[in-house]
Amino acid sequence: MAVGHETLSQLFPVNGVSIGIACAGIKKPNRRDLVIFDIAPGSQVAGVFTKNKFCAAPVHVAKKHLASGEGIRFLVINTGNANAGTGRQGMEDAIETCTRLAAIRNVGTHQVLPFSTGVIGENLPMDRLLAGLPNAVETLEVDNWEDAAYGIMTTDTRPKAISAQFQYQGEIITVTGIAKGSGMIKPNMATMLGFVATDAPVTQLLLQKILSEANEQSFNRITVDGDTSTNDACILIATGKAAVPCCDSEDSDLYRFLKKTVGEVLLFLAQAIVRDGEGATKFVTVVVNEARNSAEALEVAYTIAHSPLVKTAFSASDANWGRILAAVGRSQIEELDVNRVSIWLDDVRIVHNGQRDDKYTEEQGSKVMAQEEIRITVSLGQGEASERIYTTDLSAEYVRINAEYRT
Amino acid sequence: MAVGHETLSQLFPVNGVSIGIACAGIKKPNRRDLVIFDIAPGSQVAGVFTKNKFCAAPVHVAKKHLASGEGIRFLVINTGNANAGTGRQGMEDAIETCTRLAAIRNVGTHQVLPFSTGVIGENLPMDRLLAGLPNAVETLEVDNWEDAAYGIMTTDTRPKAISAQFQYQGEIITVTGIAKGSGMIKPNMATMLGFVATDAPVTQLLLQKILSEANEQSFNRITVDGDTSTNDACILIATGKAAVPCCDSEDSDLYRFLKKTVGEVLLFLAQAIVRDGEGATKFVTVVVNEARNSAEALEVAYTIAHSPLVKTAFSASDANWGRILAAVGRSQIEELDVNRVSIWLDDVRIVHNGQRDDKYTEEQGSKVMAQEEIRITVSLGQGEASERIYTTDLSAEYVRINAEYRT
Repeated sequence: MAVGHETLSQLFPVNGVSIGIACAGIKKPNRRDLVIFDIAPGSQVAGVFTKNKFCAAPVHVAKKHLASGEGIRFLVINTGNANAGTGRQGMEDAIETCTRLAAIRNVGTHQVLPFSTGVIGENLPMDRLLAGLPNAVETLEVDNWEDAAYGIMTTDTRPKAISAQFQYQGEIITVTGIAKGSGMIKPNMATMLGFVATDAPVTQLLLQKILSEANEQSFNRITVDGDTSTNDACILIATGKAAVPCCDSEDSDLYRFLKKTVGEVLLFLAQAIVRDGEGATKFVTVVVNEARNSAEALEVAYTIAHSPLVKTAFSASDANWGRILAAVGRSQIEELDVNRVSIWLDDVRIVHNGQRDDKYTEEQGSKVMAQEEIRITVSLGQGEASERIYTTDLSAEYVRINAEYRT
Repeated sequence: MAVGHETLSQLFPVNGVSIGIACAGIKKPNRRDLVIFDIAPGSQVAGVFTKNKFCAAPVHVAKKHLASGEGIRFLVINTGNANAGTGRQGMEDAIETCTRLAAIRNVGTHQVLPFSTGVIGENLPMDRLLAGLPNAVETLEVDNWEDAAYGIMTTDTRPKAISAQFQYQGEIITVTGIAKGSGMIKPNMATMLGFVATDAPVTQLLLQKILSEANEQSFNRITVDGDTSTNDACILIATGKAAVPCCDSEDSDLYRFLKKTVGEVLLFLAQAIVRDGEGATKFVTVVVNEARNSAEALEVAYTIAHSPLVKTAFSASDANWGRILAAVGRSQIEELDVNRVSIWLDDVRIVHNGQRDDKYTEEQGSKVMAQEEIRITVSLGQGEASERIYTTDLSAEYVRINAEYRT
């Protein structure tokens, strides 16, 4: 299941980035499960990673290599195995993967960033993974973004990819990105995996700032099941191949254009993950207005988005708004005058000043709930802060997928 | 679905408490849905209530009446409608219910405590409820505890009731209690509804202390879906009919015996709610040891217990311990040295010092997961605090029940 139509828009290559894909047989044979990114020398790379304390071995290694200051030249991504909860062996395997790819391409080990996604707690099948590396290298092409979007999928039912372009000083600047993720989705700093590249020239400092801020409003605003993965990572590459002066100031037009475009690309990818959430039949936007501050708005929004009762009501298209009200009431915020709370389903006001709106009819609520895309708005009447997050329903299919995941 | 056998042990009446039951047709015809407790003059009554900020009208009224200091003489409980999110009309209806029962039995309105459970956001059908009151009064008997346990059920598939007795100064002291609850279960101060009575004589102050402490280790340690209800309440009645001196000191034997027995009764009832959790096929105990403090232990325990991925793994009897590890890692605790964390399923150690135990085999884990009752133990290696909570799996049946709840 997934929400909305499966359409993949045209993906523009990014000058300076080639991608190779192989079927290494990591979990299942004849499946694209190994992807490498070849990044031109002189590119800048920024990253955000999971805050799960049990973060996976490749996350440790990628963070270390990124911080080493040597120019990043390759990404290597496998699906089918998360290399998490694997202790010392897992660290050795992640480093070995980098070392082998580095040797093939004649770069330093620190110039390779590793990423893994899949089942937790099993060691990587290193023989098959390493044997797949030369095959992936052989297929390196600039227009492999779509294949890469397929190559990083696990329980995803659809590839997630988008391109955006803008014009600057007569040059076309491209931003292209792919992501994966469907379950164990409540990113905290990043999504399961996201890879975005631009040919804009930009300093590492500003690139990281653009990524961190865009991430905060996109991947960090989605949740499928509240489970933050051990392997979340999102990488933003800037090859600098576009023939425009380097962006080195927040006051420049290029910075503003790039920030806006990267923000749109990340939001699209984040929403695509929600639309393809495990067992998802609804795409739900939760808006909380009039909170005292952002943290309060997010606490209320996530309490609604994580409530199994609210989520099953969405699954059933049942306008059981009492469950939304109960979730608002149990959210861990300091105090709340319930007599100032109002709740809408799309534009239908259900609760006004803490009680059922006089004009509300069950028919109106049912009509909205029957839609595939729904917006809940909660107005707390406490202050002026607003936040917006994106989530799915909880269907019997979610339970089936996760009960059978390892079988 | 429910976990374990349905057996109702012998329920001893409590001298000073009579119970009446009627079919008022509040939601459906011919169903016991109205229960009243007649409590002898001079009894002490203690209560704990939900902390949901959208707490229901009857909760507001019951708290106010309990605080009024007039001796409580009646409880009136309806199922089929929670009278929550009903604003001013809801308050009037709750008070009117008390006033009418008070008039029939010639007591003051403040001497009646109202309780409601069922769907949120609809007004009580007052005509049918009030018409049912005389019928319930007519059936008042001391040995109606079992019928009352049935009469307060909603999505429960089983009644929940228990009696315990102990001897003190040659007298048999009885503690008997009933409870209901199956979904929207993560009590915060109390369960959906629990009513416990003893014939022991005890001051109101000590009675409240016994209830609050026992509640903290029982109803406040269970979770089915993390959704704290708007209507949770637990009431402890002490009629004082037993011919022993009144308990007025924490240093007395009666206090210690009563505290222990009430604690056992509440824990039994709380666990019975988990066993009958919506769609439950497993009864899961989550133990967290070696935490810095109780709050840290509970944060980790609830993060595990609320993880949809952990819960679906239980439903499938899949020893997917990586999900437990990921839940520990994402729990909101200050810092964690993952290299000190160990995890057991029953007595099988799966994770040792942050990674898979060398001796662990999938076969061992699968054997434990196939059981109907499972204990997860997580040792954090941070300090000396321990906590223990109780929860269920997440099955497709849970989704079905809550998708169809209002149809």
